[in-house]
Amino acid sequence: MMTITDSYTADGLQPTRVIADLKALRQLTGDADGAQRVAWTEIWQRARAWERERLADLPVTFETDEAGNQWVTLRGRSDKTLLIGGHIDSIPNGGWLDGCLNLVAGYEVLRHLASQMAQSGQPPPVTVRLVDWADEEGRFGYSLLGSGLAAGTVVADQVRHLTDKDGCVLGPTLAAYGVDLDQAHKAQRQLQHAAAYVELHIEQGPVLESLNLPLGVVLGTFGVERHRIRFVGQSAHAGATPMHLRRDALAAAAKFELAIRDIAVQHGGVCTVGHVSTKPGVMTAVVGQCDCTLDQRHLDAATLAAMLREAKAASEQFAREERVSVEWQPVFSVAPVHFNPDLINMGDEAVRAVAGTSHRLPSGPLHDATEVARAGIPTVMLFVQSLNGLSHAKEEDTLEEHILMSVQALDRLVFAAIAWLA
Amino acid sequence: MMTITDSYTADGLQPTRVIADLKALRQLTGDADGAQRVAWTEIWQRARAWERERLADLPVTFETDEAGNQWVTLRGRSDKTLLIGGHIDSIPNGGWLDGCLNLVAGYEVLRHLASQMAQSGQPPPVTVRLVDWADEEGRFGYSLLGSGLAAGTVVADQVRHLTDKDGCVLGPTLAAYGVDLDQAHKAQRQLQHAAAYVELHIEQGPVLESLNLPLGVVLGTFGVERHRIRFVGQSAHAGATPMHLRRDALAAAAKFELAIRDIAVQHGGVCTVGHVSTKPGVMTAVVGQCDCTLDQRHLDAATLAAMLREAKAASEQFAREERVSVEWQPVFSVAPVHFNPDLINMGDEAVRAVAGTSHRLPSGPLHDATEVARAGIPTVMLFVQSLNGLSHAKEEDTLEEHILMSVQALDRLVFAAIAWLA
Repeated sequence: MMTITDSYTADGLQPTRVIADLKALRQLTGDADGAQRVAWTEIWQRARAWERERLADLPVTFETDEAGNQWVTLRGRSDKTLLIGGHIDSIPNGGWLDGCLNLVAGYEVLRHLASQMAQSGQPPPVTVRLVDWADEEGRFGYSLLGSGLAAGTVVADQVRHLTDKDGCVLGPTLAAYGVDLDQAHKAQRQLQHAAAYVELHIEQGPVLESLNLPLGVVLGTFGVERHRIRFVGQSAHAGATPMHLRRDALAAAAKFELAIRDIAVQHGGVCTVGHVSTKPGVMTAVVGQCDCTLDQRHLDAATLAAMLREAKAASEQFAREERVSVEWQPVFSVAPVHFNPDLINMGDEAVRAVAGTSHRLPSGPLHDATEVARAGIPTVMLFVQSLNGLSHAKEEDTLEEHILMSVQALDRLVFAAIAWLA
Repeated sequence: MMTITDSYTADGLQPTRVIADLKALRQLTGDADGAQRVAWTEIWQRARAWERERLADLPVTFETDEAGNQWVTLRGRSDKTLLIGGHIDSIPNGGWLDGCLNLVAGYEVLRHLASQMAQSGQPPPVTVRLVDWADEEGRFGYSLLGSGLAAGTVVADQVRHLTDKDGCVLGPTLAAYGVDLDQAHKAQRQLQHAAAYVELHIEQGPVLESLNLPLGVVLGTFGVERHRIRFVGQSAHAGATPMHLRRDALAAAAKFELAIRDIAVQHGGVCTVGHVSTKPGVMTAVVGQCDCTLDQRHLDAATLAAMLREAKAASEQFAREERVSVEWQPVFSVAPVHFNPDLINMGDEAVRAVAGTSHRLPSGPLHDATEVARAGIPTVMLFVQSLNGLSHAKEEDTLEEHILMSVQALDRLVFAAIAWLA
């Protein structure tokens, strides 16, 4: 088993600066409804400019790649590179920690590395890069966009025409922020020398809190199936159309929304309908068309496939019952991903050093780490406890003492991984 | 029983002009998705300008009242007035006949009256007015707005803050079209001399078609209860929140959407959820808030009240089951209304003269006639068959031969009512 290098010292690490930075970012880019750093918006750009300002005093260089990912590089004595990754984008009305904790903690790790460089008079043995992935949250229904483009798992034509909930189209939206989708594959060169990837994130779930533990090490991420489902019946006058003559698209959709919950429970996974829209969508007309989104997740690939099959069968049964049609459109899918055993051990050791006890758990949410691991780069993540298991909501929160511990654990893990790579 | 005056002659009536006018209007204000004459829009204004052009050659005067209703007056020998009413507004993607058939048929009746005036050298014994009611379809969820304001059944403060499905607010929207809601009650003076009201409309349902009859006479309109219902749970990450810890607003809404159908069937009425929206409304988050609309209708006031009570109880039960809250906001309600027996008899006679057989039926949809009858004015409606019972959809249609018959029947009814009033 790899062990943390004996020379590690936390001297110069000031985790309280992370809390101050996080609060400053919240002030700059949030409102009463939560974080508003939606990718490819003015507020998101503002967050990134702030990011560059925070690091302007360090011996680092900045770069934005062809996929819109922002890179901060601290050159080491070799090209071999350790990556620390996160994302500053949020969902609309999102939480204050999701995505940005890992970046802001990464600033502190870079400051710590820079102070050690100044003391020792030499750079670290390997290069360290902090990456702010673009559009992790999937504004257009396709998560991990920037890391997926860099990992080579996304093809431009697969996403070009996707729309967000307001009808904005992905291609032109990215172009307005300087990303030419046809050149985005060139971001893959950023991973050329990457030898390991670490990411700290809030758990966004209730497991660590239920165990009364501040920190955990992540074994891998759930596989995900994401689809848009359209039920089409016949719009008709709400007053004049007897119940038995209706072809109500909403009725089939409502049955489906309830059935996917049973499928999730039965298989020990999660299934979510997050968005529903109705046409014509007026009080006085039977719904002629109902569009739903479906998100399904499981750690086991075969079980995930079974959950998808059963959801499709259910939708077809309800369509028949209600005399409507149903159509599925795939939006996104990713297989379960397992992280690197050596890095998982190093994560455990770092967590134990800070918190006394570690715990290994899978991740329900996807993370950019999933894409990096799929590109064959040894990867691990640390989780810090979320209060009430809440995320993707303005109520998302983590105890400050736990945030401080998470920065310490990330720092230890980074130094251990550097020693491992050297 | 009143009978049609022996002096009635159809000489000068040209029902085919009605078909031509309807097609011209469809061309001017529709597209591939149907009629787009949504109240308080540029297209609606265009339809009304076209209306005035069509009648410019007749001995009539034009007036738009304080509630936005457009009046065409053919002065008779007394102030006592017969009203013919309709509406040129439509829902988005509406049908080509709903509302405008009665107006366009009314143009032809006015032409017929004018030609008789020219022949006889004297005006009719009573004044005849054609009214185009504003916003019958309830763009802001409040149907029969213009006729309700004229009938004095709507109070400005009750509707001022209502929003349409795009979030536009009623008050400022109407102001942009010259309607000051605080002055709108002055439209009541328009009904001062009204002694009878007739309205021709497509059935918008399947009854006449199932009986193979072109025309029917309407006994009255269903009572209606219309509400907005908000379920509030807790938005949370779709990947990290186990099923049993969710407070999913959509789950309660889906159960509710299915339950109101059973309530309708059990009581022999109709219940419709026409619009559903979700917040935050993204693929990756459990729904924290789900808003639905509910429309309930029945001919019997006590049964309608029972349907509403049961729907409320069901929503509260589902809210408890899903650990979410539920809140009801009343939008619109109207009691069942019965039409005038003498005018119903005259309608029967007119229909029999044109089609051989008449049929009496209630109306599921509301009509402006409901508001006029509530104001104490003797009222009746004629229905013409709808193909496949469809309306509020671009597929709405009626056989041309039935449209021609409906114009003949309306003309006979108007002449009979004039004789009755005289």
